[in-house]
Amino acid sequence: MIVNIPPFSENSAATAVSPQSLIGFEGPEKLLEVWFRPNSDAKECRELHHRHRSCGLRIVDQPTWEDMLNIVKCQVLSRKSNDYVDEFVLSESSMFVYSHKIILKTCGTTTLLLALPRILEIAHTNCGLELVDSVFYSRKAFMFPAKQKWPHGNWGDEVLYLDTIFQPEHFHTSGYVVGKINGEHWNLYTAAPRRDSDVVGWDEEDPYSEADEEMEELYKDDLTLEVLMSELNPEKMKAFWKKDGETEEEGAKRIYNDSGLGSIFPHTTVDDHCFDPCGYSLNGLIDQYYWTVHVTPEDHCSYASFETNIPISVAASPLAYQSYEEVVRKVIGVFEPGKVTVTLFSRKPENKDRETSDTESRSESSTSVNGSNHATTLFQLPVVGPGAVASWGRKSVDNIVSSEHANMVLTGSAVDGYLMRDRVVYDLGGWDLVFAQFTRKRRRALKFATEVAALDARPEEVRAAGKAAEPEGISS
Amino acid sequence: MIVNIPPFSENSAATAVSPQSLIGFEGPEKLLEVWFRPNSDAKECRELHHRHRSCGLRIVDQPTWEDMLNIVKCQVLSRKSNDYVDEFVLSESSMFVYSHKIILKTCGTTTLLLALPRILEIAHTNCGLELVDSVFYSRKAFMFPAKQKWPHGNWGDEVLYLDTIFQPEHFHTSGYVVGKINGEHWNLYTAAPRRDSDVVGWDEEDPYSEADEEMEELYKDDLTLEVLMSELNPEKMKAFWKKDGETEEEGAKRIYNDSGLGSIFPHTTVDDHCFDPCGYSLNGLIDQYYWTVHVTPEDHCSYASFETNIPISVAASPLAYQSYEEVVRKVIGVFEPGKVTVTLFSRKPENKDRETSDTESRSESSTSVNGSNHATTLFQLPVVGPGAVASWGRKSVDNIVSSEHANMVLTGSAVDGYLMRDRVVYDLGGWDLVFAQFTRKRRRALKFATEVAALDARPEEVRAAGKAAEPEGISS
Repeated sequence: MIVNIPPFSENSAATAVSPQSLIGFEGPEKLLEVWFRPNSDAKECRELHHRHRSCGLRIVDQPTWEDMLNIVKCQVLSRKSNDYVDEFVLSESSMFVYSHKIILKTCGTTTLLLALPRILEIAHTNCGLELVDSVFYSRKAFMFPAKQKWPHGNWGDEVLYLDTIFQPEHFHTSGYVVGKINGEHWNLYTAAPRRDSDVVGWDEEDPYSEADEEMEELYKDDLTLEVLMSELNPEKMKAFWKKDGETEEEGAKRIYNDSGLGSIFPHTTVDDHCFDPCGYSLNGLIDQYYWTVHVTPEDHCSYASFETNIPISVAASPLAYQSYEEVVRKVIGVFEPGKVTVTLFSRKPENKDRETSDTESRSESSTSVNGSNHATTLFQLPVVGPGAVASWGRKSVDNIVSSEHANMVLTGSAVDGYLMRDRVVYDLGGWDLVFAQFTRKRRRALKFATEVAALDARPEEVRAAGKAAEPEGISS
Repeated sequence: MIVNIPPFSENSAATAVSPQSLIGFEGPEKLLEVWFRPNSDAKECRELHHRHRSCGLRIVDQPTWEDMLNIVKCQVLSRKSNDYVDEFVLSESSMFVYSHKIILKTCGTTTLLLALPRILEIAHTNCGLELVDSVFYSRKAFMFPAKQKWPHGNWGDEVLYLDTIFQPEHFHTSGYVVGKINGEHWNLYTAAPRRDSDVVGWDEEDPYSEADEEMEELYKDDLTLEVLMSELNPEKMKAFWKKDGETEEEGAKRIYNDSGLGSIFPHTTVDDHCFDPCGYSLNGLIDQYYWTVHVTPEDHCSYASFETNIPISVAASPLAYQSYEEVVRKVIGVFEPGKVTVTLFSRKPENKDRETSDTESRSESSTSVNGSNHATTLFQLPVVGPGAVASWGRKSVDNIVSSEHANMVLTGSAVDGYLMRDRVVYDLGGWDLVFAQFTRKRRRALKFATEVAALDARPEEVRAAGKAAEPEGISS
């Protein structure tokens, strides 16, 4: 087995805080997504891989998952399944299990990463899935990091922990701080198997070479959109408290219908939960696609997250969405947040397509980014705005807008009342990532400069963070 | 005066380490660039602003700059001037003084940021330049951060220090960690005046409104290319040691001619210096453009930096450069580094141009990024590769490749022998920034997995860095 499973889960002494806590509940979630590659042990399964109730990770029974979730310190509240995926509403957020990937998202002081070795062990032992193909772990900067349990609360610790599991002999890993360290930011870790053709051994015995085409099929058009919101409108949040005499089921139904959430993707199968005295979670499914919403309505720590992998072509039926921008606008309308972080991962078209469509600007020599097998060239540079550093001639530019990703084209128009404060794009090998951060415009009622200053200044945070105290030896 | 000048420079107890030191010299430089806006006090000067020997910052005499450089802990070794700019070769790197901006780059354990208040004071008191228009401060992760003096050595401290000078009432500031915290990374801080139309007071009394057009003229087509290299080829480094019996002048001449540096921009006026026993610095000028090179050749801490603002149209005459890629390739050829970081800032075309050329995809509502007055739209998203999330229709795409920035188009072909490990794009309001990181391919001679692992694993660094230990209160 290529991944290293240290006995980290033995160290867990974390205690979960329920969403009911009124004292500084940590809404911002830890989000883990692991993709597995079928190997020869799972060949029979692989042939049925795309659509089968009893294949890959989906053969794992609920008690086994519940045992894993005990390490995280959360419980299953409800679940639903369709032909493609099992969804679980958890006491702290959500889990989605596909045959070839697992998505686990947990809030509060849960210790998600401590369960990663167990997840890998379950995949290997129970399902014969021993090759990890892609790992994504991300979280927004915590509101109350001091309350987190190791390795959470310090991004450096989380990256180190993950690098101990995905070791450099076998994986390219990246730990990023995305956005401003003196403002809103979000952290991302990725791991992908090393497949450098010039690293000794790989050309003779690359265990990943077997299922390349199948993986590309699984990855094709994959995307994840997240909208992470804080400082929510207190008026809007009143709907997310359970009413006196209302059951949790009645509360969930009322919230879904009255909050505006019910009109976002009305054609999906929904599993949701209203917490007592407040808080709300929702998982929605349509075929192989999901959306999930979590709301912490308390004014002093209000937070809501929205996440989906529904392509705009699916989202647009029966709705009239033309772009993700419209989805984002609708989500923002439900919560009216003071601060919004938007992230969008999108899988690049596969290597073959790219090579044939872009030969004019491509030399024979190619480089690789982040260990992916996608060929890229040195200065095939990203473009940020009209007139910026561009790398494409007209031919390849036409390919961009006419490609199969054309349904993802996001045309420009602002969200009224918000200012864009940050925009960063990462080339993550097989994926592109766009990060954007927005702030609601300030009211004219803010009369004094000292008040304006207080909104941004967090010197203790920046000082204590010491985010780049590099000790000796970075290149020695 | 809008900027706040605390008495930080009184705290300096730093001692400079000369390039001659054989024990872990810190080659990676701190780089500060400050742009000033002429105000009514400097009106007479402003009319001559573009090209005048005695205008703006250029009226400052050398003893005043030397006094400022004493705070940094470095000295002037030589200087040259032309109609546009004064360049200084320093005992630790370089300084360039224009009428409207200053660029200060210092290596070793110099305390560059401690001199920033003095620079602002000189600009205000001596030159009547009281409005700071843009600030950029950047540095690669240090090799030996523990040797640095406060506020250097911890990126969080540097950001906090800068935020104390550029306060949130008046400036939008951004502190970024660019690249992998568990690998090669580079830090960037930017500040730009707050000009939000909805922040109280600005619409009545925006001191920046006076010289908008002139600033746009100064900014037009501005760019900065940096190539930061480590693990240099020891064979190539032999040229950068002073030979026995050779004077420093003879050494500099030999290095310039023999190393390959002399063929990069041969049509420029060069001021260079050979250090004893090793090390080399070069400043080159052509009209308003510069290039600068600094080399630390010692094997255990080898490092070289290349920086220029020469547009490719100027660089290409009399040379046959078609793109910056060719310049980068030539620079890499001189040093044959194991690791290469490339950064490219480029000024976006001015607001007016963008609005007229991109009306099809632009709504009436606009947002602003980083406090710039450049209008942007919510999902006018950057593009990373063919087929990625695109925001332009064909019309605006044509504008990209046919724009005045077309001479900056970097067409694709790899640097032989290097793998691209990271690529990130930032939208910095008025500027686009591209960051890319490359690693020389490994030799097949690396037989053992443990050796391969040792190249990447730096757990102490990641753990000690604790780069995102966010304490309480990030949004409370």
